[in-house]
Amino acid sequence: MAIRYIGVDLGGTKIATGGADETGRILVRDVRPTEAHKGTEATIANIKASIRQVQRELGPDCEIRGIGVGSPGPLSSKDGIVYSSPNLGFDHVPLRQILQDEFGVRTELGNDANVAGLAEWRFGAGKQCRNMIYVTVSTGIGGGIIVENQLLLGSLDFAGEIGHTIIVENGPLCGCGRRGCLETLASGTAIAKRAREAARLGVPTAMLDLVDGDVDGIDSVVVAKADAAGDPLAAQILDEAIRYLSIGLGNLVTIFNPDKLVIGGGVSNIGDRLFRPLRQMILSKAMKESANHVEILRAELGGDVGVLGAICLVIG
Amino acid sequence: MAIRYIGVDLGGTKIATGGADETGRILVRDVRPTEAHKGTEATIANIKASIRQVQRELGPDCEIRGIGVGSPGPLSSKDGIVYSSPNLGFDHVPLRQILQDEFGVRTELGNDANVAGLAEWRFGAGKQCRNMIYVTVSTGIGGGIIVENQLLLGSLDFAGEIGHTIIVENGPLCGCGRRGCLETLASGTAIAKRAREAARLGVPTAMLDLVDGDVDGIDSVVVAKADAAGDPLAAQILDEAIRYLSIGLGNLVTIFNPDKLVIGGGVSNIGDRLFRPLRQMILSKAMKESANHVEILRAELGGDVGVLGAICLVIG
Repeated sequence: MAIRYIGVDLGGTKIATGGADETGRILVRDVRPTEAHKGTEATIANIKASIRQVQRELGPDCEIRGIGVGSPGPLSSKDGIVYSSPNLGFDHVPLRQILQDEFGVRTELGNDANVAGLAEWRFGAGKQCRNMIYVTVSTGIGGGIIVENQLLLGSLDFAGEIGHTIIVENGPLCGCGRRGCLETLASGTAIAKRAREAARLGVPTAMLDLVDGDVDGIDSVVVAKADAAGDPLAAQILDEAIRYLSIGLGNLVTIFNPDKLVIGGGVSNIGDRLFRPLRQMILSKAMKESANHVEILRAELGGDVGVLGAICLVIG
Repeated sequence: MAIRYIGVDLGGTKIATGGADETGRILVRDVRPTEAHKGTEATIANIKASIRQVQRELGPDCEIRGIGVGSPGPLSSKDGIVYSSPNLGFDHVPLRQILQDEFGVRTELGNDANVAGLAEWRFGAGKQCRNMIYVTVSTGIGGGIIVENQLLLGSLDFAGEIGHTIIVENGPLCGCGRRGCLETLASGTAIAKRAREAARLGVPTAMLDLVDGDVDGIDSVVVAKADAAGDPLAAQILDEAIRYLSIGLGNLVTIFNPDKLVIGGGVSNIGDRLFRPLRQMILSKAMKESANHVEILRAELGGDVGVLGAICLVIG
């Protein structure tokens, strides 16, 4: 009987579930809305239905060895509880037990950014290395850190919060209530915000043409497009975000002396425009020996990273 | 036959060696000058003589199970080689092999700040915790980080370089060639430097009375004394150093979610004047959940931390 693993990537808007073999090959998928606005019960019912659907499509001739769930936190992977999640509307939901009771197989829960790091380390850009830092630069900035082949969890599962390290004292206000967090300086949201602010102040920019003059339509993709077309304001905003990233990630290189630094998330899609200057800057921002050693790579798993990360929680 | 361990705390000016039992009780000690200026051979001869002396004093009725050496780096604990050390004048010295050949017992080598962290975790303020950050704030700022009961080494033994995380972009120039490292903002050396600069600029301060008007005589101990006596400049300089520490250490709390943050080194001797505001500030600089969890403690092992750390490399 074929051995299969199910991974659930639980997000605020959608639930993506996949069934894979032990090599991380995803064989079947299900994607459906989370419907968090309908309440916790409805969301849990949607998760169950999605798993059930994947199970059905995997067919009767296989054994499901485990179900992994990657969820926004804060949560406890040890206790299998999502403490609270503004995006999901969850409040102390014992998700692991709920799913274990429903499906009767081993179930594990993990923080979404953490498990994405696990997936890149096991199946993606971080393969075969002992020490790796994974960062996702997207709406926010999250991370998953691998130390000697183990995910860094910390004492209460809050480790790896790269986006909330302070890079600029008294910098811009962050959603977490503090100021100058990396997330407020270099996330996709931060890039878009700075571009909109500059456009509103009347700084001339081709970005406005790309959104037909609607300043609110400027997002990080628009900034990247305008930059690629030679817009100086867009270039300046990207350069600044990359500089802040180089400080925050450079500090992690100095602290962890990792083999690889893997960057994923929407902002990493700008590719060389991000990686070339970032590599250069980290050489001057991180301690020499560690900066010379670390490979800075683009994440490889794309949209599958969440499902594969969830699977990593139960595989092997 | 009693089991004993020997630890060597190798410094640029002195070699401190101790013989201890498995509980970390130091039974005999030897301290002698390093004499680094006489060259590598002379330094190695002094290390051997110091170990030999401790061995002699331990007496014939005990079995030496291992010799640990804590040394300034960069070095490789895996290969037992000190790559280079400006303070020692060492260049690729295979110290572990040299001592193993001489004494015929298991020998291990570790970075001095790292092993100090090990000692505080095993025998000092960090006892019984899984995740701990040790920081020594002294001439420089160094660290030793314990993750799940293991010392964080990184891929090439350069992990834990807390003093070289960048806290202020384009801040003061550091000995490492970069700018704004924590060490340039909050070490004993940085505190003394700022005080001397301000005194030279003519800022009125009681510090000058403490050094009979000799500005060059101002060090961090003088700053602390003047602060205790109510000197506003000294207070401002200490406050600033503590604020920078709170950013750098707060970021580590956010990244590692540790049980304890243990602070040693000369500057920690100012006690509550450091710890009270630091605890307060870390609550606002580190991520809430991790800041609420971490205990911020003064190191307990004082001058023995180096010898005990070296012993930790070979004990158990």
